[in-house]
Amino acid sequence: MTPFKLTEELLVEIQQLISEEAHDQLREMLTEFHYADIAEIVNDLEIEEATYLIKQLDSEKTSDALTELDEDVREAILGNLSPKEIAVELEELDTDDAADIIGELPKSIVQEVISEIDDREHAKDIVDLLRYDESTAGGLMAKELVKVNENWNVLTCVKEMRIQAENVTRVHSIYVVDDEDKLKGRLSLKDLLTTSTRANIRDVYINKVDSVNVNEKPEEVAKIMSKYDLEAIPVVDEIGRLVGRITIDDIVDVIREEADKDYQMAAGISQDVDSDDSIWELTRARLPWLILGLFGGAAAAVIMGGFEEMFKAYTILFLFTPLIAAMAGNVGVQSSAIIVQGLANDDIKGSISNRLIKEMLLALLNGFILSILLLLFTWLWKGDLMTSIAISISLIAVIVVAGFIGTFVPLFLDKRGIDPAIATGPFITTSNDIFGILIYFSIAKLILGL
Amino acid sequence: MTPFKLTEELLVEIQQLISEEAHDQLREMLTEFHYADIAEIVNDLEIEEATYLIKQLDSEKTSDALTELDEDVREAILGNLSPKEIAVELEELDTDDAADIIGELPKSIVQEVISEIDDREHAKDIVDLLRYDESTAGGLMAKELVKVNENWNVLTCVKEMRIQAENVTRVHSIYVVDDEDKLKGRLSLKDLLTTSTRANIRDVYINKVDSVNVNEKPEEVAKIMSKYDLEAIPVVDEIGRLVGRITIDDIVDVIREEADKDYQMAAGISQDVDSDDSIWELTRARLPWLILGLFGGAAAAVIMGGFEEMFKAYTILFLFTPLIAAMAGNVGVQSSAIIVQGLANDDIKGSISNRLIKEMLLALLNGFILSILLLLFTWLWKGDLMTSIAISISLIAVIVVAGFIGTFVPLFLDKRGIDPAIATGPFITTSNDIFGILIYFSIAKLILGL
Repeated sequence: MTPFKLTEELLVEIQQLISEEAHDQLREMLTEFHYADIAEIVNDLEIEEATYLIKQLDSEKTSDALTELDEDVREAILGNLSPKEIAVELEELDTDDAADIIGELPKSIVQEVISEIDDREHAKDIVDLLRYDESTAGGLMAKELVKVNENWNVLTCVKEMRIQAENVTRVHSIYVVDDEDKLKGRLSLKDLLTTSTRANIRDVYINKVDSVNVNEKPEEVAKIMSKYDLEAIPVVDEIGRLVGRITIDDIVDVIREEADKDYQMAAGISQDVDSDDSIWELTRARLPWLILGLFGGAAAAVIMGGFEEMFKAYTILFLFTPLIAAMAGNVGVQSSAIIVQGLANDDIKGSISNRLIKEMLLALLNGFILSILLLLFTWLWKGDLMTSIAISISLIAVIVVAGFIGTFVPLFLDKRGIDPAIATGPFITTSNDIFGILIYFSIAKLILGL
Repeated sequence: MTPFKLTEELLVEIQQLISEEAHDQLREMLTEFHYADIAEIVNDLEIEEATYLIKQLDSEKTSDALTELDEDVREAILGNLSPKEIAVELEELDTDDAADIIGELPKSIVQEVISEIDDREHAKDIVDLLRYDESTAGGLMAKELVKVNENWNVLTCVKEMRIQAENVTRVHSIYVVDDEDKLKGRLSLKDLLTTSTRANIRDVYINKVDSVNVNEKPEEVAKIMSKYDLEAIPVVDEIGRLVGRITIDDIVDVIREEADKDYQMAAGISQDVDSDDSIWELTRARLPWLILGLFGGAAAAVIMGGFEEMFKAYTILFLFTPLIAAMAGNVGVQSSAIIVQGLANDDIKGSISNRLIKEMLLALLNGFILSILLLLFTWLWKGDLMTSIAISISLIAVIVVAGFIGTFVPLFLDKRGIDPAIATGPFITTSNDIFGILIYFSIAKLILGL
């Protein structure tokens, strides 16, 4: 397979065909394209062009392409479609994707769009899904699945399965429920095919099946599915009834988004932005953290101002403030990143105090090595041993405190149920800058006997 | 399902049973456990206890548990097993997992382990896989798959499939090859079941199938599979022959590892460490970046030393060096993070110069807002308007340059084929610290006419 690559030429060609309203040619040209590739093309078109293209192509293909579009592009295109046209697209989608799209529509047209969906069963399933919070397993699951009743025999089961499987892209597993729809177990296709058609499901099914509660967090579902290498997992409600199914492709998206979010937090970027967003959106995501940094810097300036009387005799102390701030920041980020990642991967065991002691030892070791290097440098540079020693000892103290803050803050936030990822990046570097400079000058002052 | 939770009590109970050598009880107790849960338990045992446990349980369960263990634990346990015992474990594993484990064994016993594998076909497949570089699709794929020849009829095909499917945990797709084993397409199970048994495969298969080259990078495979929502993808060699198959569970691991790696790079942690590693391992991963930061700080000190004559008249300039360094660092990290993430997600389109212009505009906007705030602060604090203006104008320049470096460096590295992620974190903060301070003092000096 040569992977699809969206070239400038291809884009121009498509735009040309759109401006000529050459729908037959367009349709013929794009019929072989995967919906994910069509989404890539549509993302790069003007909204009017994109709307035209979506209207021309079969809803079977465009519906899936819609789900893959950038959110702002999708919103703009749907704004150009009538409720009926939107309903036609939703008709083709799995219930989870359809519910996600409805969730993005303006409230005023939701009612009308839903009433235009011809398949009432499908509409009912979508409406059910709208009830669930986006950040739960319920908000992630689809209604499409294959389930059979434990009281059926194999023959009935196979018949029913055929009907249900029509609507399910990938079957994965056949779930077994009781008369109250409670999840009892699963059925292997192999067993089903090698058993007498008169046998009862009750006697052949496997009464062990992993499932998640409808209120479970998506990150937890992702952990369970990737730990147990599952490609689909059934979702049950508070009283154990089978209400939906989550498939691995949705979980791959969850994992990617989680990783992107943590990474952006660590880099001081709030909100989900990407490089193609407008300057205004990018500014809004970045400015708050920069302002935090500015306040931190102002606080550091005020602290240093308090040590102004040391300027004359110990100018050298002031030359090393960027170094102290940088080391405090780096150590803090390293410590917090390890903790945040460990928490995300469920790797953090044992008590907070053990963790802190370990981090202190680590900081002492690093601090000692770095201080020796700094001592040699300052001594050789300025020739003043006492001041060099003062600076180096201060550095050790700064590093130990920075390690402590970097470890303690995310663990503390996590215990309080706050996302520890906010403790990485600018937050930790800013507070460590301030503490670092305060500690540095205080200890240096003490040692130099000022 | 109540998710498995490894409690202290459970661990103590298992250790007790191991010390009593109560193998029947152990086996009975653990038989219901998932191999991923057994791996979690084994990770927390002493190596002797772990070895005992692995030897007691069925290789059907322990082999999969072995693949889920922490690398150092697995290495220690395998060191306690004989080549024959290792071979028995490998016999149960899919070829990709078996090859991964062999790749970790000491070279001296590899030969013997392989010769102890009873299933010679399995051994041959494993040996084939050992040829591929770990960081390619070949190093990721398994040999287990279901393939049929285009020249067979449906009847032969179904017979052959039954035999092949025995060794394949999840079938996903049936691949169609020609007499030279070249991948031609795929078959849907549905079509197969609804076609006459006399029909030729040639006439019923779908001659379109996504595939990847055996030399493709794992990150690329991950992108393709998640873009097209694939659960498995066939792997072909240089002349198009079907040589293996990659499944989504392996790709989930690739995505996680990539995200972890980028995150650690941004936080200044080299090598793959986690919070439970030893202090020595953690120091080795963190110290290099800290030493880099130390050198940067020393360079900044030398630069500031060059402006020492300004100390007396403009002490305030020196009070703001931590602020300048922090802003330069933060802006650099923000810019580089957006670029690195965009590159990882294939979101970066258009030319480098357009990207740089956009980043400059963004930096100007942010810089302007931040400078106004800083101007007000310094003016109110010290009452010296001219110096306040000098500091604020310098800040704008520093932010624009920091944004430029943060954008240009990762794009440049990427063009040269170097992982741009190394340009995030300490590398960018350290160089921005140095440039920032140099620019700050130079511009201030110019404006204040010194």
